[in-house]
Amino acid sequence: MSTGIDLVIVGSIGIDTIQTPNEIKEEILGGSSSYACSAASFFTKTGMVGVVGTDFPEDFKNKWKEMGINLDGLQTEEGKTFRWSGIYEENMDNRTTLSTELNVLEKFYPNLPNTYCNAPYLFLGNIHPALQLHVLNQMKKISFVLIDTMDLWINIAKDKLSEVIAKCNMLTLNESEAQLFTGKNNLVEAAKALLALGPEYILIKKGGNGSMLYSKDSLFLLHAFPVEKLTDPTGAGDSFAGGLMGALAKSKKTSNENIRDAMVIGSIIASFGVEEFSLDRFYKLNLSEINQRVTLFKSICKI
Amino acid sequence: MSTGIDLVIVGSIGIDTIQTPNEIKEEILGGSSSYACSAASFFTKTGMVGVVGTDFPEDFKNKWKEMGINLDGLQTEEGKTFRWSGIYEENMDNRTTLSTELNVLEKFYPNLPNTYCNAPYLFLGNIHPALQLHVLNQMKKISFVLIDTMDLWINIAKDKLSEVIAKCNMLTLNESEAQLFTGKNNLVEAAKALLALGPEYILIKKGGNGSMLYSKDSLFLLHAFPVEKLTDPTGAGDSFAGGLMGALAKSKKTSNENIRDAMVIGSIIASFGVEEFSLDRFYKLNLSEINQRVTLFKSICKI
Repeated sequence: MSTGIDLVIVGSIGIDTIQTPNEIKEEILGGSSSYACSAASFFTKTGMVGVVGTDFPEDFKNKWKEMGINLDGLQTEEGKTFRWSGIYEENMDNRTTLSTELNVLEKFYPNLPNTYCNAPYLFLGNIHPALQLHVLNQMKKISFVLIDTMDLWINIAKDKLSEVIAKCNMLTLNESEAQLFTGKNNLVEAAKALLALGPEYILIKKGGNGSMLYSKDSLFLLHAFPVEKLTDPTGAGDSFAGGLMGALAKSKKTSNENIRDAMVIGSIIASFGVEEFSLDRFYKLNLSEINQRVTLFKSICKI
Repeated sequence: MSTGIDLVIVGSIGIDTIQTPNEIKEEILGGSSSYACSAASFFTKTGMVGVVGTDFPEDFKNKWKEMGINLDGLQTEEGKTFRWSGIYEENMDNRTTLSTELNVLEKFYPNLPNTYCNAPYLFLGNIHPALQLHVLNQMKKISFVLIDTMDLWINIAKDKLSEVIAKCNMLTLNESEAQLFTGKNNLVEAAKALLALGPEYILIKKGGNGSMLYSKDSLFLLHAFPVEKLTDPTGAGDSFAGGLMGALAKSKKTSNENIRDAMVIGSIIASFGVEEFSLDRFYKLNLSEINQRVTLFKSICKI
């Protein structure tokens, strides 16, 4: 039972420019750590690990603070903050990266404050697997680690990635990444191959088609909440993972049932996040709205 | 309460040649009516409406008879049976039609035997909407009609299709067809536009990603059972619809809850069907296997 930080989240912090079929938004707050910490903050005391440049707006930091996110693990380095720009196709399913500027993220080396090292829950968001391993190695009393990744690391750092995955409880990745990693088209076969790396759980995300949780002896299928007002899908996977880990940390347990419940909550948090750009929907969101949508979601999935 | 046929199913009957990444099967039994009737036959007394040529193998008919399907509505016409040939891509999600020979299907005009006209349940499988309407108009005591269609009819006979849809209780179509019909990418919006045509329910199929049932005031999300041994997806949508209608006819009710239960059963029947080519898996399937998989399915979807 920790009296300080319950959940540590490491990942990117970025300033995004996003083009959807209807709008362009420039210089908005993004990044995996930013989305995941915000989603988790509804449920548990969350510590953010990441790096920003000296150009990073104070206003963005204040928003995180208002959400109750602990920023002791946030480093500020001389230079510009990581920037990403992307464009979504008409159906919002596919997106193209227009530009990536690593900036301060290029030399990021996450050293955790002491107050973070005793946290029982850890989410290793999508950064280089060597950095993920470095963060994991600093944790002293860990009980559950979720790791995310992307096609880039599967392509250029698969060995290091496999090494850190082996030390984690759950690996999350999307359909195409699971297929890329394993060379298997069938998701059941891909999940089995990924389980063989060591983690207890493989969580495969399918965007608007939901997600699947595989373990050695069980399977769980979860829908995505059908969002009517889809404005910006950016960060949905990170919000899902952050909400999941926040809810799991709140439950203080890691049973299969707790994980299912936490996935439902993560999915619902993500469904709110995509209704507006950046973290805008989260700033206004409250627990009562979340619980209402969880109840609705359960009723529409009931068999 | 009918003492004869409870469910009438009209659709194509074909002889298929199918190429998957692993195999080619030539001259196997296919067609929407064939798949749907076989799936329904596990649950209710089903009457088949369709046409075959004089070349149609007696063995295929015998298989249907062994499944208990009533063939009084099956017409045999001089000429060759409808033939279809297609090839599946590596991932089994996409297929390309290699050839279509309408043959006797070209002049098909389905006149129902008297014993069919009092059936309370009707599935209008994918044929020209004018023929679907002609079948519907012959039914005297109908309580629930499901209609399926395809992109071809949406493109060339949308008015006639809309006319028959207005007289049905439920419309089923896949994601891309729903988008094509309505011009709306968002499925919630597409479903609302389709509901405005008249039916109480819109059932959107998403293949391996499950299905969604929309009505004016409710929504139901259903997963697809994750099939490990996917051999041939041909007819999966027809088996789903046939199983659904068979189970609904068996329940003798049409409440929202009955429809959800029937969809679960339809989905499970379809998951068996794709494990082998043609109807081969159905010939060996029994109710105990079906019930076992339904129970497993419910446990892996439980939230």
